[in-house]
Amino acid sequence: MLQLYIGNKNYSSWSMRPWVLMTDAAIPFTEVKVRFDAFTPGSTFKRTMGALVPTGKVPALVIDDGVDDGVAGSSGPQVVWDTLAIAETLAERHPDRQLWPADAARRALARSLCAEMHSGFGALRNACPMNIEARLPEIGARVLAEQPAVQADLARIVAMWTGCLERFGGPWLFGERFGIADAYYAPVASRLRSYALPVPAPVADYIEHIHQRPSVAAWVADALAEHDFLDFEEPYRTSRG
Amino acid sequence: MLQLYIGNKNYSSWSMRPWVLMTDAAIPFTEVKVRFDAFTPGSTFKRTMGALVPTGKVPALVIDDGVDDGVAGSSGPQVVWDTLAIAETLAERHPDRQLWPADAARRALARSLCAEMHSGFGALRNACPMNIEARLPEIGARVLAEQPAVQADLARIVAMWTGCLERFGGPWLFGERFGIADAYYAPVASRLRSYALPVPAPVADYIEHIHQRPSVAAWVADALAEHDFLDFEEPYRTSRG
Repeated sequence: MLQLYIGNKNYSSWSMRPWVLMTDAAIPFTEVKVRFDAFTPGSTFKRTMGALVPTGKVPALVIDDGVDDGVAGSSGPQVVWDTLAIAETLAERHPDRQLWPADAARRALARSLCAEMHSGFGALRNACPMNIEARLPEIGARVLAEQPAVQADLARIVAMWTGCLERFGGPWLFGERFGIADAYYAPVASRLRSYALPVPAPVADYIEHIHQRPSVAAWVADALAEHDFLDFEEPYRTSRG
Repeated sequence: MLQLYIGNKNYSSWSMRPWVLMTDAAIPFTEVKVRFDAFTPGSTFKRTMGALVPTGKVPALVIDDGVDDGVAGSSGPQVVWDTLAIAETLAERHPDRQLWPADAARRALARSLCAEMHSGFGALRNACPMNIEARLPEIGARVLAEQPAVQADLARIVAMWTGCLERFGGPWLFGERFGIADAYYAPVASRLRSYALPVPAPVADYIEHIHQRPSVAAWVADALAEHDFLDFEEPYRTSRG
């Protein structure tokens, strides 16, 4: 049995990745949503996640196969944290789902792209935090004009996606199968849409296509139904209005 | 045939990880060292790495099996970048080396810890950049006293390592076999030593033990032989003296 701990669907881009991946691959799991709060040591979020994972962060995957987990001195459920570790663990547990590309060279490239996301794109992430319900085209235009590092991040995204779509024929980054790389870049597609950053047609098509994917559409629908407004996630809005 | 592109051994903690891993596992490779420079667009480093990988960064692993790499429209060597993607690719290509723990639960935990390093410990990394030849105990004491975030990072490292060493019996993080997690945290061990950050005895023993590991000792010896001083990597020293 799998449980996936996530944060707010409107804001938590890291939570979105494994949720979309598992939903898309029809891997059964129970969602446990832990609403973002002040993140102070005694807050509900920090107490809940701190009891589960040493980082105290979402997402976290709890694997309870009802058997000893094979770790000496422990017979409880296994907790896996951090999106990349979750993705690799799921890919291993469900080889039939081909979450990574079946071809070794494509798989190595897909892993490179996901690792690049995992430790990179700081400027884009800072300037354009995920906010699914928001439409902030003026902000997008401004940060792009003012921040060369955001321009560089956007250029890299465009080059990466157009390169993959051309090379592997689309409609997904590594060809005909939606996989970990697509789930990994889904929150980026959401950002590009929210902030209306300018992209060439193939990238605009991919953004549209990924938003129509049922797994992504389901996450977005849940996000839109949250009606939650968190100051510290909102550098640009003063209310949901 | 494998080629590993790395930066300066004294400074490049990300380069150290796959180099130590491959050396330790006796996976044959050719080292290509690209000296850090000003990192301006036209610099030798940026031209060399920019021609090889889209991020323009080290480390990068070039896999040339002398056969078509299976990627449509390409028959050249495969380039894998970012340490986590390199580690997973090596683990797959060399299952006999057991680079990840053989047990699934330990493997999931090892992946969680490596992913945590990959995207975390920003305070420790910023305040205490790897500098193998330097001994900066006063700096270590000062940043620890002044920066709660560094204290938190250190506390997490101590909890992680002591937890693993106790749970799996040592001498390595996941038991008797030196693996990806040890290679991943080797540069952290180097930092703790350079800045003389205070740690409990089991952690001090692990730091000593990992420095005696031949693969790590070989990297350190090469670093000490570099005699290179790069201003932008040296927030605390004005010369090698």
